[in-house]
Amino acid sequence: MKKTTTPLSELGEFGLIERIAAQFQPQRSETVLGIGDDAAIVEAAGNELLISTDMLVEGIHFDLTYTPLQHLGYKAAVVNFSDIAAMGGEVHQLLVSMALSNRFGLEAVDALYEGMAKACDRYGVDLIGGDTTSSKTGLVLCPTVMGRSASGGAIRRSGARPRQLIVVTGDLGGAYIGLQVLEREKIAYTGNEGAQPDLSPYAYAVGRLLKPEARFDVIEWLREQGIVPTAMIDLSDGLSSDLIHLCRSSRVGCRIYEERLPIAEEVYAGCEEFRLNATTVALNGGEDYELLFTVDVAHYDVLKQSALVTLIGETTEWEEGMHLIANTQEVIPLKAQGWNPLLDAESVNTEDE
Amino acid sequence: MKKTTTPLSELGEFGLIERIAAQFQPQRSETVLGIGDDAAIVEAAGNELLISTDMLVEGIHFDLTYTPLQHLGYKAAVVNFSDIAAMGGEVHQLLVSMALSNRFGLEAVDALYEGMAKACDRYGVDLIGGDTTSSKTGLVLCPTVMGRSASGGAIRRSGARPRQLIVVTGDLGGAYIGLQVLEREKIAYTGNEGAQPDLSPYAYAVGRLLKPEARFDVIEWLREQGIVPTAMIDLSDGLSSDLIHLCRSSRVGCRIYEERLPIAEEVYAGCEEFRLNATTVALNGGEDYELLFTVDVAHYDVLKQSALVTLIGETTEWEEGMHLIANTQEVIPLKAQGWNPLLDAESVNTEDE
Repeated sequence: MKKTTTPLSELGEFGLIERIAAQFQPQRSETVLGIGDDAAIVEAAGNELLISTDMLVEGIHFDLTYTPLQHLGYKAAVVNFSDIAAMGGEVHQLLVSMALSNRFGLEAVDALYEGMAKACDRYGVDLIGGDTTSSKTGLVLCPTVMGRSASGGAIRRSGARPRQLIVVTGDLGGAYIGLQVLEREKIAYTGNEGAQPDLSPYAYAVGRLLKPEARFDVIEWLREQGIVPTAMIDLSDGLSSDLIHLCRSSRVGCRIYEERLPIAEEVYAGCEEFRLNATTVALNGGEDYELLFTVDVAHYDVLKQSALVTLIGETTEWEEGMHLIANTQEVIPLKAQGWNPLLDAESVNTEDE
Repeated sequence: MKKTTTPLSELGEFGLIERIAAQFQPQRSETVLGIGDDAAIVEAAGNELLISTDMLVEGIHFDLTYTPLQHLGYKAAVVNFSDIAAMGGEVHQLLVSMALSNRFGLEAVDALYEGMAKACDRYGVDLIGGDTTSSKTGLVLCPTVMGRSASGGAIRRSGARPRQLIVVTGDLGGAYIGLQVLEREKIAYTGNEGAQPDLSPYAYAVGRLLKPEARFDVIEWLREQGIVPTAMIDLSDGLSSDLIHLCRSSRVGCRIYEERLPIAEEVYAGCEEFRLNATTVALNGGEDYELLFTVDVAHYDVLKQSALVTLIGETTEWEEGMHLIANTQEVIPLKAQGWNPLLDAESVNTEDE
């Protein structure tokens, strides 16, 4: 530890993942897909098993001053389920490891598991294992989720081709505005112990942050419509970052249109109040857990008519790069400015502005 | 957090696990075995998949003053592999999530992954995913391991019947003595920065702690001999604790003999130096990652002749309880005094004495 140290933030999460992936090329025949997608794929007697894990660390991913433990348990499960949705699969089992400092008692653990039980119940998932241990400081949750791919196989990030439609589910930036609201109330609360925050004007945005859902409803609807996305990813880091990952994995470029970004009224209102640019929030706000996918143009009409999804652009040749077409017709290169879990929480909170 | 809090240590890890297991009864037909064994079992087209996860937390499970990061990476992988060995299975894939504070740079991450790569290489395992994120303090590793059971099915903790042999692989207490040696050197080192500890008299014990192995060699040997254990568990908490888990799961009693406990010379020497009772260390020292299993008496001769295993006792009726027969012929009830990950590290370090 006393030798030279290169800060991890220099590489960024995806630089680090690429570095690790290069070291660990799968050797076993049953390992269908290793590091680098929403979930890994393992073959078992003709079935494609999906497996994924995401860690949630106190002070980095959540702040317990405004995160009820039940919600946290629910969210920890759901954000992992979302990785299976992003492969177009079904989610079946969950394992949860957790480390808790001694400020957490049995009541806290019960609340966490209650939230996880709610999520498991809602999504039809079995909690089948895990590990509970102590930590010196704070709470760390590490769920691992297992599922199966749909009959046509898992939908990877790498399947997009030029001249396909880029589609997003739901709306964008809600969780980020929810975070701003709660951070503000936290500051207000710190100065005034008796204050009861009134979050009602931002109930939707706060709900987006504290209680996200995995979009299996969209996966099912797509199946009913006979639509198979060519590539898919879930929006955890922010549209811009995650679209860049998808495009890089597929070696395609993209063009998305500012005027088409789906943004809820409350997000516009929040942006006004917090003096944020709504497009920036929609592009870079993380944790919405919507799905982003590409699909053949043949499905244009069906997708165009659905309230579940929004067509936001199209893929292009790789050489054309990745761009946002602004309302002014200006062509702006997309940047990965979303959530970087390898920076400190403090710097993360300011970096999206 | 301001309400009543019941310390988790009151329930203990296994009380907590039972409480959680009661809340999460498997609903899905493919979930063969949920919470409560070394690994969970999931069915996939006739195959039994094994999956398990174990968390390693800085300051609780390891101390970086004397744990090289490469060794830590190796151990984090291997202790998870050991859970698959304890089901009599084959280990195939690994996912590793980690949270690191900013005192860890790229070099540290590289060392950790180097260790994991070594373990994966040695055990023929593919690293297929994970998550890397930051933490406010310290290092948390959360590996998840996947494998398959052998053709006869997984060996659970619950299959032991009365009047079977109790067998242990390797020898006991080495890792605990290794820990004492390193803790002593740490204290010595703290007062004298230039001192180079001489660990050579305890090379074996220190190696047991820092670089454990999963006993797939024994699994293979048993298969060659046509011996199928009726129940099995790996020794992470200590012989006494883990034997109690196995017996409780199987609803059998047990009788083990002090004179038969396999203890290495170095462990005896260490016990003398640290004024510890060797039997106590063999019973309660954790982290040896040997296998403990029960087997039909028909296999007595083959097992008796093998240097890989030691017959330490036999199962009895549940009502007879669990006992150690001391060299003095005294009958001593077994107690779970091993590692309790829900107590603080400080109290753990003293509780085994």
